[in-house]
Amino acid sequence: MKRIITISREFGSGGRTIGKMVAEALGYKYYDKELVKQVSEESGFDPKYIEEHGEHARGYTGLSYGLSAQGVPGVMRGMSPDDYLYVIQREVILRVADESPCVIVGRCADYILKDRKDVLNVFIHADMDFRADRIVRLYGESEKSPEKRLVEKDKKRRLNYKHYTEQEWGKSQNYDISLCSSTLGIDRCVQIIVDLAKELDGE
Amino acid sequence: MKRIITISREFGSGGRTIGKMVAEALGYKYYDKELVKQVSEESGFDPKYIEEHGEHARGYTGLSYGLSAQGVPGVMRGMSPDDYLYVIQREVILRVADESPCVIVGRCADYILKDRKDVLNVFIHADMDFRADRIVRLYGESEKSPEKRLVEKDKKRRLNYKHYTEQEWGKSQNYDISLCSSTLGIDRCVQIIVDLAKELDGE
Repeated sequence: MKRIITISREFGSGGRTIGKMVAEALGYKYYDKELVKQVSEESGFDPKYIEEHGEHARGYTGLSYGLSAQGVPGVMRGMSPDDYLYVIQREVILRVADESPCVIVGRCADYILKDRKDVLNVFIHADMDFRADRIVRLYGESEKSPEKRLVEKDKKRRLNYKHYTEQEWGKSQNYDISLCSSTLGIDRCVQIIVDLAKELDGE
Repeated sequence: MKRIITISREFGSGGRTIGKMVAEALGYKYYDKELVKQVSEESGFDPKYIEEHGEHARGYTGLSYGLSAQGVPGVMRGMSPDDYLYVIQREVILRVADESPCVIVGRCADYILKDRKDVLNVFIHADMDFRADRIVRLYGESEKSPEKRLVEKDKKRRLNYKHYTEQEWGKSQNYDISLCSSTLGIDRCVQIIVDLAKELDGE
């Protein structure tokens, strides 16, 4: 039995939905926004800032770290706000993974938990049409084309992952299983992950 | 039902074994070395040359293509031997895919068949220890360390794939499903692929 499932995902691929359904089927806790709340309480970061920056680090080379920007706490151990946020997020992820079986979506959790044997690492991707259609349905239209939004968001996630893990986001070898949700369908992805979590050795 | 399954794989990951077992379970033809024989008959290439170069293209910038090197046919439509071999391999793959349901291992088959809807593209990878142990058991010891052999062979496959497809070998998004055979085990990989081939729409 795998106690922890991490889900990395392309924007619009349905990774979050799959994560929620897997957590429900297994009776596991589900962490995504829930993580934001805990990180906010422990770090002093504004939840909105965490949602925007928790997976999209920027360089802060021009800023004086002593000054507190909007939504950013004053004390950051000499780190940039995004690096500080990463450190706090990492601490929270390590702790919740210890506390109880869970599904964690995004936030480099696969990398952060890489030394544990009871983790199943999953990557969810999908073709462009499927994702474009999905984000317009879920998040509405915007000035930018859905394709542009997808490319930009994936790029941010890729750069953030690279920055903190020195690994390539979406490279098969980082995950135990990678699934194309547009070919397989959301339900079948859920079933495969649930079966694997149950069948695989967690030692 | 998916009529065609392509299997790309890291050296030593058990991808060929998985491919054979999937073909057997589904009653499909299996192409790997079998492809070499057909390509040899149609191209005039020595089977040994095909085995060595069919997945490892080299640059031939210094050679005059009119001259026939050992194991290489004389007439190559003005192409380098490796490019000519790729073209013939491509023709054979397109034809066998038309002829009957099959499993094809390696040789950029996922890319060559990308316009068909009845194809399931699979990537098999595994951790270094599993693969090192496996190649020593299957292919014996050599002067080089197993780790070095793995890195070199994967590099050749990656460069060959990049050269002919302009895509990244092992990038999740190129495949419908990517599986870590050392985590999941060979038998479970086979079962997942067989189930998907049966369940998924081939239209």
